[in-house]
Formats: sequence, C-alpha cells, structure tokens
Amino acid sequence: MEKRALQQINYGIYIVSSKNGAKYNGQIVNSVFQVTSEPAAVAVCINKSNLTYEFISQSKVFTVSVLEKNAPMLFLGKFGFKSGRDIDKFAETKYLLGKTGAPVVTDWSLAYFECEVLSQTDAGTHAIFVGKVIAEGILQEDKEPLTYDYYRLIKKGKSPKAAPSYVANTFQTEEKKAAAKFKCKVCGYEYSPETGDAESGINTGTAFESLPQSWKCPVCKVDKNNFEKEN
Amino acid sequence: MEKRALQQINYGIYIVSSKNGAKYNGQIVNSVFQVTSEPAAVAVCINKSNLTYEFISQSKVFTVSVLEKNAPMLFLGKFGFKSGRDIDKFAETKYLLGKTGAPVVTDWSLAYFECEVLSQTDAGTHAIFVGKVIAEGILQEDKEPLTYDYYRLIKKGKSPKAAPSYVANTFQTEEKKAAAKFKCKVCGYEYSPETGDAESGINTGTAFESLPQSWKCPVCKVDKNNFEKEN
Repeated sequence: MEKRALQQINYGIYIVSSKNGAKYNGQIVNSVFQVTSEPAAVAVCINKSNLTYEFISQSKVFTVSVLEKNAPMLFLGKFGFKSGRDIDKFAETKYLLGKTGAPVVTDWSLAYFECEVLSQTDAGTHAIFVGKVIAEGILQEDKEPLTYDYYRLIKKGKSPKAAPSYVANTFQTEEKKAAAKFKCKVCGYEYSPETGDAESGINTGTAFESLPQSWKCPVCKVDKNNFEKEN
Repeated sequence: MEKRALQQINYGIYIVSSKNGAKYNGQIVNSVFQVTSEPAAVAVCINKSNLTYEFISQSKVFTVSVLEKNAPMLFLGKFGFKSGRDIDKFAETKYLLGKTGAPVVTDWSLAYFECEVLSQTDAGTHAIFVGKVIAEGILQEDKEPLTYDYYRLIKKGKSPKAAPSYVANTFQTEEKKAAAKFKCKVCGYEYSPETGDAESGINTGTAFESLPQSWKCPVCKVDKNNFEKEN
C-alpha cells in the first residue's frame, strides 16, 4: 500500500509538552483533534518510545501549543528530530507555566491549551491520550497556523521515523529530477541549491559543495559530512 | 472558557461511512488522524448518538472519504446535518464497495481508505475508533482537499450540535454587523445578500425577502419559514 490516500489527511502542527517532576519535555505532533465539546477534550497521538510519552503517562497532564506558519525549521527540528533524552529542549525556549505545571511553549505559538489526561489507549507503536481542556489562551492574533502540508510541501520538511505519518522515501520522484540535491542522513532534510538556506544566510543558487564547512543541517544541526548526494 | 484556542486546531473534512447488514450510513467528520505507520492505522471520533456510531460498533468496519474543496453545501448538509434514521443518505450518492463491504462515498471525494476496527475508546459524548487501513485509493488527482477553516470561513458553514467542535453562537460579532442576514433555525446556515446562493441560482445582492417561496435552505432543505432575522 502506497499510503497516498493517507497523505490527504489534513493536519496542523503542534508542540505537545509535559513534565516529570522538575523536568520538562515536548515534541512536534500533527495528530491532534477535538473529541468532545462538553467538556472540551482533545486527543493527541504520541509514539511510545518518546520521552514525552513517558512524561504524560506519569504526570497525567500535557499542554498543546498551536504553531504559526513562520516557525523556522531550526525550531521545528529541535522539537521534531531531537530527543529530550539528549538535550534540554526548554533551555533556550520561551514557555509559560499555567494550571497543570507542565510547560506551554510560547515561542512561535499562536494559541495553547492545557489538559488533564482522561484516558490512554494503546495503539501499537503509539498511544492516544484524551485530555480534558482545563485552561487555554491566545498568544498571537492575526497569524496563520502552520499546517502539515505547508511544512511538507513548502518548507520541504520530513516526518521523523517515530511519526504516525512517516513514509519511507518520500518525494522520491521529485528527488530523481535534480542531481545536485543533498540529503541529511540523520533527519532527512534535503538541501537544494534552488532554495538555498535563508535561515543560515545561504543564498539560492549555492551548490552544496560551496557551503562553508561551518554550515550545519538547519533541522538537526549535524555537519556537512552527514549529507549524501541524491540520485 | 471561550474555546478560541481549540478553534486553532487544523482539520480536513471527511465522510466516515459504515454498514449494518444491507443498510449503509455515513456522516461528516473532521476529527480524523493517522495513529501508526506500521501497520497504517487511523483514528476517527464519532458522536455516540449518531447512527454511524451504531453501525461501526456492530460491523467493526468503516471507510473514510477525503472531501474536495468544491463540495457543495447541499452535499455537505446531507451528510452533516441529516440523520440516517430519517433519510437514506446513499440513495442519491455515488459510492463504491471495496474490501470491507462498507460503502465508500466517491462523490466530491479525492481519496479514501477502508478500515477494520482495532479498538474503540469511550470519551463521554463521543467515541474514538482506531482502524487498521486495509485498502486505499485515489479518486481524483490535482484537486485540493476541503479544510474545516475553508468550510467555516469561506463557505460560512457551521458545526452541528453533535460535533466535537460545536460552539454555540459562533461568529456572533460578525453577525451583529449586518442586519439583513437570515439564519436557518434548523441547521444554522446563514443567508447573506452579500454572498447570495449560487448553488440555487440566487445572485449576490438578493435580499432574503426577495427569495422565491420555493427557495430552500441549501444545507438542510427546510423552507424559508424556518429562517429568522439576525440581530
């Protein structure tokens, strides 16, 4: 099965955060939906191998930040491709502490809600948490939310292997057309001379070979040696 | 709680269908997300008072059709505001029968997937079904999917009371501005002279009072007597 139909499902992109004592963690999630109106409750889907899963299972609370369209790849990469077991994602991230005591990411966020877990359902590699919304807030007015389509098609972002929507070899057809593209073996980010890397000051038209040695993958921050040429 | 943050969640719009013996039913759903990649599985959220809930609970199969942007309000209204207990929604709807034997709506659909229920989780007024995807198909290439935002903001559609995302008195601020708008007491559809009703051949600029007596609500098909002036 190619899973092309499944790619037609529409998503936003969110950071789901939780806590374990004084430790905080959070991760990118696209699988979020409202479940009931009275009481207001939402469901989120989390990979069971992720630290955020452990934290929510134990603390029974989580928060959801709705990300805005302009959130940079570097920020998304920190929460999407890095593990809280390796780095402290909240060290250089703005957040607030509300009613649950779990952190609410406010960087690049439009709105948030805080939840208390009502139920946890096992679904193989992932689990679905249903949470009662006990607080919410608007952080920025008149900004557009980031959608999964925009992330995937415009920002050329990928899904990590732990995501529900992970597809091996995405965009293979497109990749075959351009010989000078290079792909990060760690996170799947694709460097293309056509788009450059504005966030790192790299102009469009810059060949991969011409990137400075100090250049790093804008998503997962590994160096140039971790890139391979695309066929 | 105003639930304004919850309205920032991004959704597509889908028809989830199921069967009970030789009877078919389906309904509009916005709460759909992928749960796992291996095996491919999705979650859908259904109101427990709906006929579709009964059918899925009994047959343990459901299908999901991804609707396209141009799906007309009349079609959406049939599956969103009518109950299968009152009408046969499949009588004048194109559909196919695949592996599950449950109908797959093909009218105004881009893609579909068929699912076998893996689990069912109670969530108060609603239930979450997780289904393993056993078949899928693309029905139309190069068309855009309908999003909930487009339905709500451009098509001016509402959520029925049974929806997870139902909010009483939505768009109250906008409604106050225009005195000549009329609202359907049955489904909440708002007639505005500014937009007219192209699907029924009503030009923009036509006052509600000037609509022919034969005109019916394009969403739920009740007649003009069921409309009230907005304040």
